[in-house]
Parts: sequence; structure tokens; C-alpha cells
Amino acid sequence: MELSQRAIAFPSSPIRKLAPYADEAKRNGVHVYQLNIGQPDIKTPQCAIDAVRNLDRTVLEYSPSDGFLSLRRKLVGYYGRFGIKLSEDEIIVTTGGSEAVLLAFLTCINPGDELIVPEPFYANYRSFAIAAGAEVKPVPTSIEDGFRLPSVEAIEEQITPRSRAILICNPNNPTGYVYTKEEMLRLRDIVRRHNLFLFCDEVYREFTYTGEPYFSSLHMEGVDENVVVIDSVSKRYSECGIRIGCICSRNRELLAAVMKFCQARLSPPLLGQIVAEASIDVPASYLEGVYDEYIDRRNFLIQGLNSIPGVYSPMPMGAFYTVAALPVDDSEKFCLWCLKEFRHNGATVMMAPASGFYTTPGAGRNQVRIAYVLNKEDMAKALDCLRHALEQYPGRTV
Amino acid sequence: MELSQRAIAFPSSPIRKLAPYADEAKRNGVHVYQLNIGQPDIKTPQCAIDAVRNLDRTVLEYSPSDGFLSLRRKLVGYYGRFGIKLSEDEIIVTTGGSEAVLLAFLTCINPGDELIVPEPFYANYRSFAIAAGAEVKPVPTSIEDGFRLPSVEAIEEQITPRSRAILICNPNNPTGYVYTKEEMLRLRDIVRRHNLFLFCDEVYREFTYTGEPYFSSLHMEGVDENVVVIDSVSKRYSECGIRIGCICSRNRELLAAVMKFCQARLSPPLLGQIVAEASIDVPASYLEGVYDEYIDRRNFLIQGLNSIPGVYSPMPMGAFYTVAALPVDDSEKFCLWCLKEFRHNGATVMMAPASGFYTTPGAGRNQVRIAYVLNKEDMAKALDCLRHALEQYPGRTV
Repeated sequence: MELSQRAIAFPSSPIRKLAPYADEAKRNGVHVYQLNIGQPDIKTPQCAIDAVRNLDRTVLEYSPSDGFLSLRRKLVGYYGRFGIKLSEDEIIVTTGGSEAVLLAFLTCINPGDELIVPEPFYANYRSFAIAAGAEVKPVPTSIEDGFRLPSVEAIEEQITPRSRAILICNPNNPTGYVYTKEEMLRLRDIVRRHNLFLFCDEVYREFTYTGEPYFSSLHMEGVDENVVVIDSVSKRYSECGIRIGCICSRNRELLAAVMKFCQARLSPPLLGQIVAEASIDVPASYLEGVYDEYIDRRNFLIQGLNSIPGVYSPMPMGAFYTVAALPVDDSEKFCLWCLKEFRHNGATVMMAPASGFYTTPGAGRNQVRIAYVLNKEDMAKALDCLRHALEQYPGRTV
Repeated sequence: MELSQRAIAFPSSPIRKLAPYADEAKRNGVHVYQLNIGQPDIKTPQCAIDAVRNLDRTVLEYSPSDGFLSLRRKLVGYYGRFGIKLSEDEIIVTTGGSEAVLLAFLTCINPGDELIVPEPFYANYRSFAIAAGAEVKPVPTSIEDGFRLPSVEAIEEQITPRSRAILICNPNNPTGYVYTKEEMLRLRDIVRRHNLFLFCDEVYREFTYTGEPYFSSLHMEGVDENVVVIDSVSKRYSECGIRIGCICSRNRELLAAVMKFCQARLSPPLLGQIVAEASIDVPASYLEGVYDEYIDRRNFLIQGLNSIPGVYSPMPMGAFYTVAALPVDDSEKFCLWCLKEFRHNGATVMMAPASGFYTTPGAGRNQVRIAYVLNKEDMAKALDCLRHALEQYPGRTV
């Protein structure tokens, strides 16, 4: 039986495809320091856990297709704290940020249309683009420039009559880059001039280490019809498993179309909504503690990386990832070798080869994405593994 | 900003599009007997509620993309009780049956390919088909025949070089029809002969009132590569809100492709999986009680319907729906009139116009889908409303 062309084209997850080798190493008693995946070790807020532990329903029934009104009202308050004005009917609750991405694509992009994305980018965008029949047009950014947005000209070069949208992730996964206000306004001008949607994945909004207030695409005027924000409570409250996100827009026609699809899939997860709603009430000290922890880890990681001969990482200003260049022939081979061949004090390190975050052939071949989701003690051991692995790796280049 | 063609084509839910009028009636103090939606009033098993109330996790993290192994193992045991042999790696946990449908379509059907579906059919299939770019080719069935499957010839007439799959729902939503073993084998021969996928939505497996053991598409030999089962715990355990379903197949290549997409959306809901896993252990008396309750309600409803002059409903042998013919010009107008104009003892009745379950223009125009998800006392009042409404409705035909 022949599968669909899109099924054949779906890429394997660059984050998960090495998982079987990590599992095998673990079975053999090896400790694997996992820096490959954005699963924080931070505790979920206690008030959120308590909310579900105190569940007092007898029937776990469908919730509204756009999510509980009470949750959407809390989200209005949440966005208000960032100076983002939204009403409850400009927010549709989704099954994680993932569904928000898929719905944005399905609603706005025709098969064969083009989606412009600064590269490297979150690999799963490509799967959702393939699902919607969209073609990803990467705009290259470079590690030497700290992955900052290219010039207007470089972006406009990618625009064709088939272009429908620009997608950014801000703060960025995988690079940790945070777009400046000036860059955001540049994007605003481009989407207005060319009549494009601007999809902004803002799930790392809290994790901005610039000292400046977060500048959201929803702060910009004159692009109410263009801007679609993808959001999620996953990273913010360390509750990735509950699968609650949302799509925000001031484009009413777009919201109505998204809603038709949401009705087809009936409702977002009931229990996750209960957790998410309670999480929004977490005391400010929780997010402050998380913030301080990540800054501390980031500083520790980047200093550690750059002290290893031949390794370079820019200083990421947001999220909890960095893309680092390693002195290796091929980071996919290297990451695999770490899991299969290399051991240091009974342990090894797992990273995500960055090639999976690029579509330009050959790009990012010597880079890895590292998530700083481990505590400093474990991260020190992971860095120690990496240093020794690079000394021993047969495919070392410099 | 122009939306995608598929966004424009997404149909509004025939079940939910009257909801604003029901809400308004309720705001005006009218009691609305809701027979329009498959939301049972049956209690979720206590052991399932307790499982989530006893949650002892501190981080609500991602689960595996194919669902917890412990849940998939329980599902293997569950299927075993029906004599269906599956291994844990032939089951992928999804976000409700809805996601299972979408993934089956995305994985097997190319844009422009055709999906053959006996009509009337669950309306949301069409939205998912549009999302995948698939064209629905309806095979008409008729209320006079109790909605049974048409002849081999009538089905084969719909097959073209673009046909990729046949989709059935068994027991059927909206008709309550249960396919006979002979009909299933007929479908088996057709899909083998024409190299088609056979998608079987079996979410109402427990609700079969024929007295015969349930005959699943997974019982058939020689179609391991063709058969894809869509399943869900929603109806079985009255936990529609947790959004846990699964996709089952013995086609390994297909499973691998589905898995790539599942990795892109990261994981199914964590808390729902905990509830689902506990539900599978519910004592047999729970499902027996639910079964008896539905048979009782069905008998009561169908007798009540057929005692109203001009109304006809066949006896549904499964699920908890029936499609009934009413003596009205247009059931959509009638259902709307019931919500907006008609009151009987301060109450009215809400049903789903059947036209939304057909794609053939004009088909099912005098039919409604009725879900027997209310207790008998409420159902009696709902039937009383319906009888009076039909007496007063200006568009009555006979």
C-alpha cells in the first residue's frame, strides 16, 4: 500500500531520532546527560498540580471548542501584564502550541504557497508545513552574527508571488536569539508591504534576558490583520505534558476559520485546561525563581562551552537553548558516536544535531542545539563529557 | 488578508452551529433538552477520576509521542477481550479519535485523492478530509433500508483511479447502524481488489445491541496492510473531555509514518492518558450498566418517535444515535424554529439537522440526528416537546 507523498516527506524529528541509541546506552547502565530536548526539570507550580488533584467533576465531558471562557479570561489578564491588549474572543485554546502552528498553517496557506522562516528554525515547523502542503523558504542567519535577523533586502529576496507568511520564533528555538524592537518593526513593514501573514511563536516570552521589556508582535500597530501569535503554557510553567496552548489574533475572519477546524476536533484537553488556568495564578516569585535559574544555567553553559578548545557559542538572550559550533566533521555522526561509542566516568552526553533545524543542504553541519534544562551540577558533568568526547572523537576537524 | 481555500471550505459543525440559539434560549430561562450532541450524561468511572486525583508527579512533562507504554499495554489487553490480537507497537495513542482520523488521512491520502464514505456520515470527517486535501465521495444509504451498506456494485461504481480509501464508522454515527459480518467481508474483498485503505472508526464498539459479538475490521484476515482502526476512550468511559484515542494498524510502514507526525506534535495529553489507563481497569459491571441503560433509552426513544404522527426512525442496533425522518420541509429550519420560536411548558428540544451529515445536495433534508444521551425522564419531556413542536410548526409537510 502506497502512503501519501506528504507521509513520505515528513522528516524524522532531529530531537528524537537518536532516542533509541540513548535508550540502549541507558539499558547498559550508562548515564546519559540529556541536553537534546526542551523538557525542563523545573517543577510545575504546586497550585496547578493541586487544581487537578482537587478535581470535583463526575463526568469528564467535552469543553468548548475554543477552550473554557474562564481560561481565556485568565489569559487576557496574563497578556495584560505584558501590555498586550486582547479580548477573550481573540484567543482560541489549542492542544499545545503544536496545534496552534498546524491551525495557523491550515487556515492561511494554500498547498504550494511559501512560508518564509529564518533558519535555523524549530524543526517541527517543517512537518506542519508539509501537512499543510506549504513550502518552507529559509532565510539564512549565521552563528557569526549571533543568528540575528538578516537585512530587509535579504528577506525581500525570498518573497515571490506565492509567499503567504513569515514565521518567527521569538525568543528563538533553537538559537536563543531575541528579536530587537527595530527588527520587529522591520518585519512589520515587510508583511504590510507584501500583504503577508506574520506568525509569531512566542512560547518563550518569559525567558528574555535582555533586561528590556518583551516586545511582542501584538504590540505593533497597523498589522492586526496580519499577526497570528502561537503560544503555549508548556515552557512557562514547566507543564509540557498537559498540551495547552493558544492562538491569538485580532483578525476576526481568521479566528472564525480556525474555530471551524477547532469544532471538528471537538475540544482541547479538559484536564490540561484546569492545570493551565490555575498556573496563571502562580505567585510572581515562581517565575522569578525560574528566570534566575535559567540565567544562571545559561551563563554557566556558555562560559563552559567557549572554554572548550574549538567550540563556539554566541550568548543567547532568550529561551533555554543555544546553537554551538563544534570542531567536528558532522555533528550528527558526532552525537551518534557519543551515544554509541563514547563513555566518560560511566556517562555520556546527548545533544541535538543542528542539521535538523536547517533545510539548506549542508547548513549547520558542525553545529548542535543544546538545551540548558539540567541543573548546574549535571551540566558541569555534561560539559566534562563533551570536552573529553571532542578530544577523542575520530572525526575532529581542528 | 486572504485565507486559504481550505479554510473557506471548512464546513461549520452541524452539531454546534445552532448552539448560539440554544444559549440564548437558556439565557431567557427556557429549558433546552439537548439531543443534538454525543455528550453522555453517564458518570466517568470513579477509578479514573481517582487516578488523576491521586496524581503524584511534580513535573507534568512530555509523554512519549506514541503514548505511555503502560497505556498501550493495557489497550492490548482491552482488544484481547474482543479477540483482537494487537501488539503494543501496533497502537499509537492520539489526542482523541479526532487526531486519529486526521493522521490516517494525512498519512494515506494525497491532495485530490478520493475517500469513499457511506452517507450519512459523521460530519467532522469532511473537515479532516478538507484539511488533507481529500475529496469525499459519498455512497448513499437510505432510511428505508435502515441505512445498511449498499451492494458491492453500488460501492464499486464510486471507485476511480483516484480512490485511496473507504471509511466506515461501525457502529455508525449518526445512524446507529451496525455492519454485519457479511458486509464487513464484502468491504474486505473490495479494498483488496482495488488496493484501498479501509479506515474503520470503531469508537462505539461497546455499544452494539445485536446480541452478536462485535466483528471488527481487525478480525479480518488478508487485509493487514489495508486496515486502519480509529478508536477513542471518550464514549466507552464517558470521558470525552480527556482527548485520548488511538490509531491501530498492522501496517508497519504506515505506523512509522504516523509516528513521524506524532513526534512533530510531541505527545498526547499526559493527564488524559492517566485517566484512560485507569478506566480500562473499570469493573465489568460499569460497562454492563451503561449498556443496559442505553438499550433501555434506545427502546424508549424509538418507540416514542415512531408513535408521533409522521415521524419514522429505524431501530438502531448500535452507538447512541438515530436518524429520524420528520414531517417537515427542512429540518434545519425546524430545529432553528424549535430553539427560537417554540416553547412547551417553558422548554424546547435541540436536535442536529441531518443535512450536515450528507454531502449530496438536498439529501437528508427532512431528517434529524438524535442522540439518546439523556435519562428516560428527560427524554420523555424532550419527545413531548417534539410532538407539540411538529403539531405547531408552520413548515409541516404531511
